Amino acid sequence: MSDLINVINATLSETENLEETLETLRSKVLAMGGLAERLLAKALKGLQTNDSALAQAAISGDSEVNQQEIEIDLECTRILTDHHLEQSDLRLVLAIVRIISDIERVGDESEKIGHIGVRVASEGGLHERYKRQIRNLGQSVKNNLRDAFNTFARMDAEAALVVMKKDKEIDEDYEGILREMLTYMMEDNRNIRMCMDIIWVVRALERIGDHAKNIAEHVIYLVEGRDIRHVSTQGHKNIDSLVSELD
Amino acid sequence: MSDLINVINATLSETENLEETLETLRSKVLAMGGLAERLLAKALKGLQTNDSALAQAAISGDSEVNQQEIEIDLECTRILTDHHLEQSDLRLVLAIVRIISDIERVGDESEKIGHIGVRVASEGGLHERYKRQIRNLGQSVKNNLRDAFNTFARMDAEAALVVMKKDKEIDEDYEGILREMLTYMMEDNRNIRMCMDIIWVVRALERIGDHAKNIAEHVIYLVEGRDIRHVSTQGHKNIDSLVSELD
Repeated sequence: MSDLINVINATLSETENLEETLETLRSKVLAMGGLAERLLAKALKGLQTNDSALAQAAISGDSEVNQQEIEIDLECTRILTDHHLEQSDLRLVLAIVRIISDIERVGDESEKIGHIGVRVASEGGLHERYKRQIRNLGQSVKNNLRDAFNTFARMDAEAALVVMKKDKEIDEDYEGILREMLTYMMEDNRNIRMCMDIIWVVRALERIGDHAKNIAEHVIYLVEGRDIRHVSTQGHKNIDSLVSELD
Repeated sequence: MSDLINVINATLSETENLEETLETLRSKVLAMGGLAERLLAKALKGLQTNDSALAQAAISGDSEVNQQEIEIDLECTRILTDHHLEQSDLRLVLAIVRIISDIERVGDESEKIGHIGVRVASEGGLHERYKRQIRNLGQSVKNNLRDAFNTFARMDAEAALVVMKKDKEIDEDYEGILREMLTYMMEDNRNIRMCMDIIWVVRALERIGDHAKNIAEHVIYLVEGRDIRHVSTQGHKNIDSLVSELD
């Protein structure tokens, strides 16, 4: 009888703790996302304002993002070991395993922009005419990354689809900047070095955009329980039409 | 009594099936890896031999890689739902979830090289002097990718460390090619267009190299049960010294 009571108690406390544990886990993912967002903001501002200390902060901050990924990852493994999760909780944990991998790469790309910022600052800063492209694309990417985290916070699959569509615009803007840089380089080969820096920065931004899109995809997988990666979002009005295409 | 027999039978058959299921899963991952390797080989050969049909095959083949990722991913989720895995099996499934995501991206990058190959072929093919760089870096990356899959097939953490070290050499070769291209571009701006194509190709190769490194990391995580991502491999002679640094 006391055995049975122990089992019931253990089961009850397990149920309660799991809910709390998963909630804490979600908060940690959002905190990690916030950290990566701030690194990106520092890297971009450092580059645009010729502030190498700020660019340096984006570089040194990446190790904290990496550390948080390891901690959350270990926590996910521990949860999967200690509990036999039901379908929806399992989906949450697997989505988190993927999301933190994307956030970690946002940190890596921000660090890369930081490195370019430090070097560019030491060489006298960015030419005025290149700042517009960085500012505009940077703003779009920052917004879409923030929106991606918001879709995770609110488990909003509709909003996640919007993030995925916005990433198409980001890709187009990126291609436009590449073409512009190519023109400057052909115009005068003294522009090549700085244009290449701009190309690396916008390439990093485009990759961060991809990670925001990936996060949105993970949220849809989480909410809808379907894997919509590799399905084009073009022309889709809502989840239903997207999902109907998958059937 | 018949209930008890049913439970025992179910338990026995579950144990047997799980082992078989995991073995089948491992084979599927290796098959998916082999497919991605072949796409990369086609994309590179298409580019080097001016064969747009081959480059096109690298493009159209990517959807099969994507499809296999979805299938393996669903199988992983199903296994985690149907079984409460012990630690080592759990680690295997989580490693596979990550590995297929890297393989899928190898497919994406090969597809990108395929697109460049198709365009370059339509423009008369690659200039002879750029072929060497593509051939050498391409060979290193293909070898390291194959070695990464082998470390997974054999669960060989020592060999996985070698893959991680080789990736450092690949990064250095990549940087060298970038510097060379920059020189050509500054020499004559009529070189810019083709140099940019070379830069995108080697950039894709470098990213495939990163995915090979990631796969090796996942294998080490799997074999050693420790997360060594974000730990530098520089100067490490073996797993022990690597692991001791983590303690």
